[in-house]
Order: sequence, then structure tokens, then C-alpha cells
Amino acid sequence: MKLSVHFTPVGLSSNMIAGRPVLVVDILRASTTIVAALANGGRAVLPAASAEDALKLAQNLERDDVLLAGERRLEKIPGFALGNSPLEMTPETVGGKTLVMATTNGTPALLAAEAGRPVIIGAAVNFTAAAEAAARAFEEAGELTILCAGREKQFALEDAYAAGRFAQAIVPGKLRRRLEMNDAAIAARELVRRYGTKWTSALNASAAARDLKALGFRADLKFAAEPDRYEVVPILNDRRVTLPERG
Amino acid sequence: MKLSVHFTPVGLSSNMIAGRPVLVVDILRASTTIVAALANGGRAVLPAASAEDALKLAQNLERDDVLLAGERRLEKIPGFALGNSPLEMTPETVGGKTLVMATTNGTPALLAAEAGRPVIIGAAVNFTAAAEAAARAFEEAGELTILCAGREKQFALEDAYAAGRFAQAIVPGKLRRRLEMNDAAIAARELVRRYGTKWTSALNASAAARDLKALGFRADLKFAAEPDRYEVVPILNDRRVTLPERG
Repeated sequence: MKLSVHFTPVGLSSNMIAGRPVLVVDILRASTTIVAALANGGRAVLPAASAEDALKLAQNLERDDVLLAGERRLEKIPGFALGNSPLEMTPETVGGKTLVMATTNGTPALLAAEAGRPVIIGAAVNFTAAAEAAARAFEEAGELTILCAGREKQFALEDAYAAGRFAQAIVPGKLRRRLEMNDAAIAARELVRRYGTKWTSALNASAAARDLKALGFRADLKFAAEPDRYEVVPILNDRRVTLPERG
Repeated sequence: MKLSVHFTPVGLSSNMIAGRPVLVVDILRASTTIVAALANGGRAVLPAASAEDALKLAQNLERDDVLLAGERRLEKIPGFALGNSPLEMTPETVGGKTLVMATTNGTPALLAAEAGRPVIIGAAVNFTAAAEAAARAFEEAGELTILCAGREKQFALEDAYAAGRFAQAIVPGKLRRRLEMNDAAIAARELVRRYGTKWTSALNASAAARDLKALGFRADLKFAAEPDRYEVVPILNDRRVTLPERG
């Protein structure tokens, strides 16, 4: 059994993950926001590599069904309907809609993971459900890659902590001795020793949290740190993130 | 006071470090090997981006004074005089010579750091001396970047541990409360809590150590884990790594 953590998508090639299970985390905020959007009735989220790419993708869809969402430097992209805040993803706003989403770190991570099978989107807000889905995939495949979005191609504490939390939840105690972990998985585990099971402590220590607070997104931070608010497990397949268990 | 750790050179732009102190670590093995080469009488080490680049650089130097050194996939580059093993850097071999060196991770990290001032090369084998030089630079500048070479653009445990060790040695206890650390510095510190002051434990847990052992470089690993074998502090300046205190 093999567990690999990647702190950023840099250096992850599709042949490393093609056909193999991947869990993508971008706690602050894209994976939290995607979970909220789909849990609240959004039909699908289409990750876009850039604002321009989002506009192109949206042009191929029925105008009334689509919402553009995303951020640059944490703020909503000008002209887009939504930013990247999970609090914007209310049933009234996203119900029945397809979101085309461009964010700085989260959507590039999803696109880097898309050769995986399945590609599971995890956050604190769907922690238990996502961990259970990832554990099933891990048992079947005998391996799992946890891909952190990171920040600007660099290490992000909140995602690394989340990777550690997922790793701990996914790998049964009896397997831990036989488990092959990469260097990043070892380091992620240490962050769990440090911060324990308090999402708030780990998230608040991160640079992303400081920046979100400075821009008035304190409520997003609180939302992102609340575990198991939802039981949905978003899956990326064929460039669309949906809740396939809904059929 | 600001302390930044980067687990890989990816995303580090020269304007982030131009004119500011940088400590470069590639414990397995380039920074260890460079320290050994200069401590044993090597005149200079010139980092090259690739084997081709190394050949070009060597052409501009007196043939008798130059040794080509470097590795691809841990093994010596065909046609080069030396690999990337610190054990090759004996006084008989490197005394008075200029080494032109191309390695997979270490020399790209040095080239990424070259806008810094000073650019200090640190390893376990010159730990105390390098930490003292970095501490002086940190106090003067009010900031320090510790750049890990990493492996193939990804996190490497042994370099992250080394970054944590240097961070701990460099920042006086009284300053720690006022210290601004980036996310990677926080995580590096946790690795020191985990592995304590035993370089061997941290190094042996790394993927690089497993690969070195598999290829017969067990002695390199032991050498790299022995702290303070040397008191020299290599400095990169104008594309040359030398021991400037020698005048």
C-alpha cells in the first residue's frame, strides 16, 4: 500500500496518477467552496485554468444555467457572478446551476489531477464522507495520492495539515506498518501531531488565513474549519465536478 | 524579523531574494559535497544548470585546473571526472582545482538563489559554521530565506529537516515571539520536534536515503549525517562558490 502526498501540483505528471485514486484539497478555499456549491444544489462545477478559459467554457453552455465564479488575489474576478467564498454558495444562488470556476490554486490542482480515477474533492466541511470515499478507493487500488493545491506553487500549511488528517483517517491502524509513504506524507503526519484534530488551530496558523482576514473573509475561514457540515463527495470526471451518487 | 523556508526553488523569484541573505541546503548531496570539496582544498565550485552547461563553462577555463563533477539519477555523468559524492572530494583529487558541477536538484537551487547576498551553502557537515554565518546575515538584514533543493521540484524530507535545524539555530530564543515565519518554516520546525537533533534519523527516513542505499551510496549517507566535520562556509557570488574568508 502506498500513500503519496504532494504539497503542490508542481512536478506531478499525469502518468504518475493516470487511472489511480487522487484526493484534491484546497481548504482555503476552492475545495470548501466546491463542496458547499454542490451540497447546496449546484449541478456541476467546471474547473477553468484562468478567467479567460472560464469565459470560453461558459460560452458553450446555456447562458441561464451558468454562473461564473472565481478569484484573483482572493477577490472576485471582475464581471464574474461569484467569487470563491463558500458563503456565496447558497441554494438560492447555485441551485440547478453549473458553475465555471477559475481560482489561483484550486482549479489548477483539479486540472493537474484530472487523469486520476476517481478524483475526489476533500475539505474539512466534508471530511468524513470524503475520507470514507478515499479509503475505499485506496483499498481497491492499493495506493492513493493526496494532492494539495498549495499557494502560488508553494507549500500551504492548511492543505498540508488537511493531507495529514486525511492520511490518518484513510489508513487503518493495522496497515500503517506496511505503508509506503513519500517524504511529504511523513511531514504532513507531523503537522497532525502538532495541531491535533483542531482544524481551527492549523488553519489559523497559515498565511492564507492571515490574508483572508486582512481582506475581510474571516467568516470564510470559520466556515472552512467546521468539519462535516456536509456529507457529499464531489468527484471530478471528464472536466466536470459533480455528485455522482445522486445519479 | 522574517524567516522564510522554501521546500523547492519553484516559485522563488529573484526579486524575492535580490540583495537579501539566502541559505541553500541540499543535504543529499550537493551542499554536503560542495562543503567537502572546498574544505579539502578545491579553489571554487561553479554550479551549472545541466551537463551541457557544465561542458560550456569548463571550456572557458584552463583545462588542467578544471574538474567536471555531477550526477544524473544519482550516478556520475558519463565522461565527467567526478560524481556528486562527498567521498570523492579528497585533497589529492580536488586540491587547487575548480569544479564545474551539474546536479539534478542542488545546482538548480544555487542558480535560483544567486540574486541573494550573501548566498551561504549549508549542510550538516558545516552546520555550526554555516548557522553562525547565516545568523549574522539574518541579524543584519532582518530576514533570511532558507532554500531547500528538494527533489525533482518536490518536497524532500532531509532538506526540510535541515531547514528546521538551521532555523532553530539561527533565531535566538528571545526573538522567536516576534518572528514572522512562512508556512514552510512552521512545518520545518515540526520536523525538528519529531527527529530532534539526530541528523541520521531524519536523513534515514527520506526517499533520497532509500535511493542512495539502493545504488550503493550508503557511505555518502553516513558522511552527510555527521555534523560539524568542517568549519568552512562556502559562499556563492558571481556564479562561483568559494570560501571568501580565505581571501
